[in-house]
Amino acid sequence: MSDASCDFGLIGLAVMGENLALNVESRGYKVAVYNRTTEKTDEFIQGRAAGKQFVGCHDLKTMVASLKRPRKIMMLIKAGPAVDAVIEELLPLMEPGDIIIDGGNTHYADTERRTKYVEEKGLLFVGSGVSGGEEGALKGPSLMPGGSEAAWPHIKEIFQAISAKVGPNEDIPCCEWVGPRGAGHYVKMVHNGIEYGDMQLICEAYFLLKHGLGLTNDELYDVFDQWNSGDLQSYLIEITRDIFSVKDDDGDGYLVDKILDVAGAKGTGKWMSQLALDLGVPSTLVTTAVYARGLSAAKEARVRASKVLTGPSGKTSEDRAKFIEQVREALYASKLCSYAQGFVQLQAASAEHDWDLNYGDCALLWRGGCIIRAQFLDRIKEAFDKDANLENLLLDPYFTEAVTKGQDGWRAVVKTAIDLGVPTPAFAGALAYYDGYRNARLPANLLQAQRDYFGAHTFQRIDKEGTFHAEWLQRRREPKS
Amino acid sequence: MSDASCDFGLIGLAVMGENLALNVESRGYKVAVYNRTTEKTDEFIQGRAAGKQFVGCHDLKTMVASLKRPRKIMMLIKAGPAVDAVIEELLPLMEPGDIIIDGGNTHYADTERRTKYVEEKGLLFVGSGVSGGEEGALKGPSLMPGGSEAAWPHIKEIFQAISAKVGPNEDIPCCEWVGPRGAGHYVKMVHNGIEYGDMQLICEAYFLLKHGLGLTNDELYDVFDQWNSGDLQSYLIEITRDIFSVKDDDGDGYLVDKILDVAGAKGTGKWMSQLALDLGVPSTLVTTAVYARGLSAAKEARVRASKVLTGPSGKTSEDRAKFIEQVREALYASKLCSYAQGFVQLQAASAEHDWDLNYGDCALLWRGGCIIRAQFLDRIKEAFDKDANLENLLLDPYFTEAVTKGQDGWRAVVKTAIDLGVPTPAFAGALAYYDGYRNARLPANLLQAQRDYFGAHTFQRIDKEGTFHAEWLQRRREPKS
Repeated sequence: MSDASCDFGLIGLAVMGENLALNVESRGYKVAVYNRTTEKTDEFIQGRAAGKQFVGCHDLKTMVASLKRPRKIMMLIKAGPAVDAVIEELLPLMEPGDIIIDGGNTHYADTERRTKYVEEKGLLFVGSGVSGGEEGALKGPSLMPGGSEAAWPHIKEIFQAISAKVGPNEDIPCCEWVGPRGAGHYVKMVHNGIEYGDMQLICEAYFLLKHGLGLTNDELYDVFDQWNSGDLQSYLIEITRDIFSVKDDDGDGYLVDKILDVAGAKGTGKWMSQLALDLGVPSTLVTTAVYARGLSAAKEARVRASKVLTGPSGKTSEDRAKFIEQVREALYASKLCSYAQGFVQLQAASAEHDWDLNYGDCALLWRGGCIIRAQFLDRIKEAFDKDANLENLLLDPYFTEAVTKGQDGWRAVVKTAIDLGVPTPAFAGALAYYDGYRNARLPANLLQAQRDYFGAHTFQRIDKEGTFHAEWLQRRREPKS
Repeated sequence: MSDASCDFGLIGLAVMGENLALNVESRGYKVAVYNRTTEKTDEFIQGRAAGKQFVGCHDLKTMVASLKRPRKIMMLIKAGPAVDAVIEELLPLMEPGDIIIDGGNTHYADTERRTKYVEEKGLLFVGSGVSGGEEGALKGPSLMPGGSEAAWPHIKEIFQAISAKVGPNEDIPCCEWVGPRGAGHYVKMVHNGIEYGDMQLICEAYFLLKHGLGLTNDELYDVFDQWNSGDLQSYLIEITRDIFSVKDDDGDGYLVDKILDVAGAKGTGKWMSQLALDLGVPSTLVTTAVYARGLSAAKEARVRASKVLTGPSGKTSEDRAKFIEQVREALYASKLCSYAQGFVQLQAASAEHDWDLNYGDCALLWRGGCIIRAQFLDRIKEAFDKDANLENLLLDPYFTEAVTKGQDGWRAVVKTAIDLGVPTPAFAGALAYYDGYRNARLPANLLQAQRDYFGAHTFQRIDKEGTFHAEWLQRRREPKS
């Protein structure tokens, strides 16, 4: 067993780990696997791995000894202290040039720290975003590796082999080197944050069509099926369509109508929001989506409030086909703002951490395998290929036209939602972002005046350089009363 | 000098520290002062403190020796490591039962930590919010002390003496014990976050009246003067009115029109947002205000975008008086949502940290002295006096009626803003919050279906207990294409 014949080591045999190990093996590599609970390893080796090129290891020393050098060991375990613990176990067993890979859902700051730490010990460290869920892990995920750049030539072949493929010939891997230290996990986090935005936007479209027009699930299926053949074509639109076709096993009607409207969250949308706030960039869409999940979770409070707080309800008198098209335009334009914000945050983070990210590559990584996969990402890649420093996606001619063309419908939909009392925080927030971003002048002049009035915070002027303070209280007009 | 005759010690003689020291002395207390730069202390003693009951100290040992026991020493220095450094210096000099007070703009988590640490050393620690700027520090700030409860009986007299006073006889101090450890600094942070919301809402009202109606600064003065005599009466409305009367010294016209629309921020709004995200409570207004400041700061990017991205502009044809009243209603209703969110966050934080906050007291603390002072806070105090566990301000009959009465105008204003291309993220976001909160059913059922589809995250049902998972992919209708 310890003949150092394995190409890749994998630690952690939960579903994601098992599936990724099977994926690697299926591309012609011999894989060593280890799980803290020994029985899990044995079960896998005797079960799904039977007859395949796997070596089951009962301890890490055996796993390390079974690997060709430079050794490549990937963890797919719970993010947090467990990752540090495994690193500590591996360090004395491995040798200079060997590579430790964390494929978990790790906060980028931990990957920044671990890359430096492992490099100090003479080894290489990679933190890789892995997206696509269980199915992606098995058949081809989106992979976003970052960390010790010297590791890339050694893992590139395997990583690109197992990743999702896109392009006319399905030969362009959704896996490229992202950047130093925590860059890969940061890009994965932004992917997830964009996913939050997409899902919230789809929910708002659904709610408007359901309540504003009274569409049935069958009709919603047809609308989303149609949308999936146009600009909105994406995995999330496709599965939303599918959801409207699934009947309830336990009763009449459709399953979606029986599901409790309390949304869960695992934290990456929150992280992206908190980091946007630290960077001072307005990633409003992801935050709106996180807050909307928070409000949904307060179900009992909402039920109580619904009996006290009144407001409009009812259906729109708008033409059905026209309203559906307006909702589509609102969804698409809001989605463009959401992606634009995500890339602005990536740019700010890249500048802050000196990552030198390639934004076209980021779009390509998300083109297949992952939850936000969509043809539309090709357009984003093209935009950054044309101008690597494009400061906002909305300024690329293709997207400028798209958002301009759709804005009448977008505005109409938000107004209709207000009339109907249907909450559309993401549609409305995206529109406020658009109108704010395209306004050379915002009312922050008054805000600066207020801050200088009560706190002597000073202000700048539009007509000359410098920092100014005014004695507002002394110079104000004396009030009559 | 070392006859232990002083009642209070104050460290840090920047403007806030000087003013607070003068305030304490003016109430009949003898005050020891110390500044790291000795010249600053001497200047103060020979200048503003001349002839008053002050003792200038050139080192902390002298200050400690000059104080009656239990000693009370308050820092008004830059938040962060400097506070820890001073604590380390003071600990060996002080004795059990002595009190260290941090009056700086400190993150509550630091105050949590420091209270435990200082108590372990046998002393008492207080972290106190101080609001009201330089003028408040001198004449009567809002004070929000929290920390070691055993300290309160010893500092209560001085703190309530120096604080702002409200009520018909101006004898109710804007200072009460807030709660354990970081509670005081947390309440101060929420105060600041609400201030962010108030300022953003006023800016949106201003922008709409300026661009939607074309009001002059004189006319804006009159509108805000009128608003200041009604429900909106508050310090921020008052100073906004005043701002519209201040002419530019360096040219024609009004100063507010010459100020660059780039808003600064000092971080408490960001902290409140980040902590709301951690708690899972939707404090959307403060976050919208923080993001709006971020977008304002991207001035050059906005100027470039304004040349590319098009949208509506122009003035409303709405009746002038009617539109002004609608804007007032939008401002007031949005403000109610903002305060409601702030108190929901306080409740969540109090539960998380076991602070047992008194929400009526919080409203009272903000009633005078501070930036968000307003008569309207009396109503909030009354609401919590009636029901200490009121789960949302909007459910108190007074506020229910206020928000219900104003909602037609509120909805009309957001729609008009959309038509005019004027960004109103806070008005629109508050309305989306209101419509979300009062909806017993939100579209999160679809979101849970999506999460279960792609990630097997499971869902709950509306009709029975338990956790469920569906094989969506197997059960979906086979698509035609």
